[in-house]
Amino acid sequence: MPDDSAWTNDEIEALVSERARILGPAVWAAAQPDARPVISFAGGLPDIPSLPGEALLRAARAVIEHEQREALQYGGTFGPQPLREAIAERSSRIEGIPVGIDQVIVTSGSAHAIGVVCETLIDPGDTVLVESPNFPGSMRTFRTFGAEQVAIPMDDNGLRVDLVSEALDRLQNEGKRAKFLYCIPTHQNPAGCTLAVGRREQLVELARKHRLLLLEDDAYGELWFEDEPPPSLFALSKGEFALKVSSFSKIIATGLRMGWTMGPPALISRMASVRYDMGTSPFQGRIIAEMIRNGDLDRHIANLRSIYRRKLERVENALRDYCGDYCTYTAPLGGFFLWLQLRPGMSSRDVQLAANERGVIVGQGPQFFADGAATDHLRLAFSYVGMEDIEEGVHRLGDAMAAVAARQAAK
Amino acid sequence: MPDDSAWTNDEIEALVSERARILGPAVWAAAQPDARPVISFAGGLPDIPSLPGEALLRAARAVIEHEQREALQYGGTFGPQPLREAIAERSSRIEGIPVGIDQVIVTSGSAHAIGVVCETLIDPGDTVLVESPNFPGSMRTFRTFGAEQVAIPMDDNGLRVDLVSEALDRLQNEGKRAKFLYCIPTHQNPAGCTLAVGRREQLVELARKHRLLLLEDDAYGELWFEDEPPPSLFALSKGEFALKVSSFSKIIATGLRMGWTMGPPALISRMASVRYDMGTSPFQGRIIAEMIRNGDLDRHIANLRSIYRRKLERVENALRDYCGDYCTYTAPLGGFFLWLQLRPGMSSRDVQLAANERGVIVGQGPQFFADGAATDHLRLAFSYVGMEDIEEGVHRLGDAMAAVAARQAAK
Repeated sequence: MPDDSAWTNDEIEALVSERARILGPAVWAAAQPDARPVISFAGGLPDIPSLPGEALLRAARAVIEHEQREALQYGGTFGPQPLREAIAERSSRIEGIPVGIDQVIVTSGSAHAIGVVCETLIDPGDTVLVESPNFPGSMRTFRTFGAEQVAIPMDDNGLRVDLVSEALDRLQNEGKRAKFLYCIPTHQNPAGCTLAVGRREQLVELARKHRLLLLEDDAYGELWFEDEPPPSLFALSKGEFALKVSSFSKIIATGLRMGWTMGPPALISRMASVRYDMGTSPFQGRIIAEMIRNGDLDRHIANLRSIYRRKLERVENALRDYCGDYCTYTAPLGGFFLWLQLRPGMSSRDVQLAANERGVIVGQGPQFFADGAATDHLRLAFSYVGMEDIEEGVHRLGDAMAAVAARQAAK
Repeated sequence: MPDDSAWTNDEIEALVSERARILGPAVWAAAQPDARPVISFAGGLPDIPSLPGEALLRAARAVIEHEQREALQYGGTFGPQPLREAIAERSSRIEGIPVGIDQVIVTSGSAHAIGVVCETLIDPGDTVLVESPNFPGSMRTFRTFGAEQVAIPMDDNGLRVDLVSEALDRLQNEGKRAKFLYCIPTHQNPAGCTLAVGRREQLVELARKHRLLLLEDDAYGELWFEDEPPPSLFALSKGEFALKVSSFSKIIATGLRMGWTMGPPALISRMASVRYDMGTSPFQGRIIAEMIRNGDLDRHIANLRSIYRRKLERVENALRDYCGDYCTYTAPLGGFFLWLQLRPGMSSRDVQLAANERGVIVGQGPQFFADGAATDHLRLAFSYVGMEDIEEGVHRLGDAMAAVAARQAAK
């Protein structure tokens, strides 16, 4: 018999759902930046000094002055109407196709959107295709909904669409279908690459032929450095075969927990129906709508492009000086990430540990792969690190690589 | 063969999850106040003129000035630390027991919290006990997670705890257990009643004996009129057997989508783990923490108590003048709702329709019951209606009742 006051661990395990059992308890401070005095290339976190606090306050003042009554009441599960209107108008311009508000739902960040997509589409045992390597947060969500993930490899030009085709044929032969293909076609996380335009067209054609839904995660698409990226899968399929998940996290602030998803109205309305949160904050939604209308958002994004381009340049210069003997990479065209391939025989885990000892943290290996395979890759996020710390950080990373290479040579 | 462009309805039905199929598509403008020029006693919505926009702006300015860096970054799935601290400190005072931050999780409103509780605890086919009548939004959430709801009746003193005991024994004999009992013990929605202190003690004793989790929804608890309500189930069980779900919706604004839940740390950490949204807005969370620290929240709640007490008084005076022949009620001690019992033979549906024809909307009947049973009750929300519209609204409701009674007498 349990004692009659507190719950025992066994009682908790017996009480919780299958999903909760898969996940176990949470540790506090998850998704927090490292609190130690280190140089961090680890998290996909935005630049700190440019966070637009004053622009947010200015917009908040306008909202309270002109639309307090609506901003402080329920806004519905599709999201606050002025934000949907501002997103539809802006997206029509960016996507080059007309986007109506019935194609737009506002969510509490893109991680929330991906969870709502799973609530809408996934029953335990369903199959999803997943670009690999990929963002661990999304793969965790798919896993906890009981989805079976089929990993599709990438190369420097992004997802291997020929292998998507093979996987679809294989599933068809097994009498299965994929509920969706999850990918990050632009400035991919972690690989940094961008899916070539020809492959995008092939992928949309495949989707049309196989009635395959494309779950297109576009958290980084607007942060390009020299040229606009190719048209999105959403645009190429005329909004029919892609749910494009976007976020204000990387273009305003992760601390807002706001994003949006565009797709076929029939699926958008299913997402609005299945969520149980009575919608995402109309107060914050209208603040962001005001930042879109008054031009602050576009000005801020232009500024971010220049900041991240300069950070990448500085990282690349330092890599050339300190790490050139130990790794190669394909330069990203935008976003937050540089994906280093280590020299044959060098282990990413060893380099990560050696860097950590030198006060530098980087992301590595298995967490980015649905099958948990170890790799010889490191992910360098150049977004969060202070401009003035970059050279020193990469210098120490080079020392770490040299130490690992020396140990390897001595074997 | 489907055509090769848009999705057909059949294709969508085949694509979506079991939950999405239960729910169907959403209609836009759900949870919006009625847009017609009517007098509304329908929605559980806060008073409009007192919405604290200036206090929110003042707090936002302080947050951007002093803690912008933290406010605009991820805060983790337990919620922003300063808000958890402010809630724990304030709750220790209100509950009369020490509350630590490991007992607190911040959610995107209480509807979100209840959904996260379901993600954490409910597998399809599980049983939950539900106080009846009850809030339709929560019952909808339970239903879509596949929970079987056992309705437990109430009387003027709230939940019939003797019937909870019977239901638990019955379940035990069937080899089943209830995952939780969902109830709104204070200023209940829709019944307006408050669970008597003796019954609260019995219920906590039952929970302890049967290892039954109490899911205590407290959206209205702080809005008492003359006297503080009895101790919460959370307090009476020393935080061990209740998850107490609270919301800033009714004490600040529904447009923030912010709330909090307190309970055993082991369950709070499971809730933090199972959610997939990377937490609720640290920006808004820190704004609310500032409103707690600077005293604005407590001052605002004191003001709200006086506003809603005056609205209730005005409604009661008008009911005496215009509706006394047709209905009775037990006066609520706080909250938003008055639950009218119609004279025998009068149908709540008929009165609702007759009132609607006269430009007055009220809530009625089956939506508040898990079994969908029709009733002779009407719910009058006295919170949202303008002070100056109350007498006219109740006058028209009285006319509607008179018309229904006359039709009934003529039969």
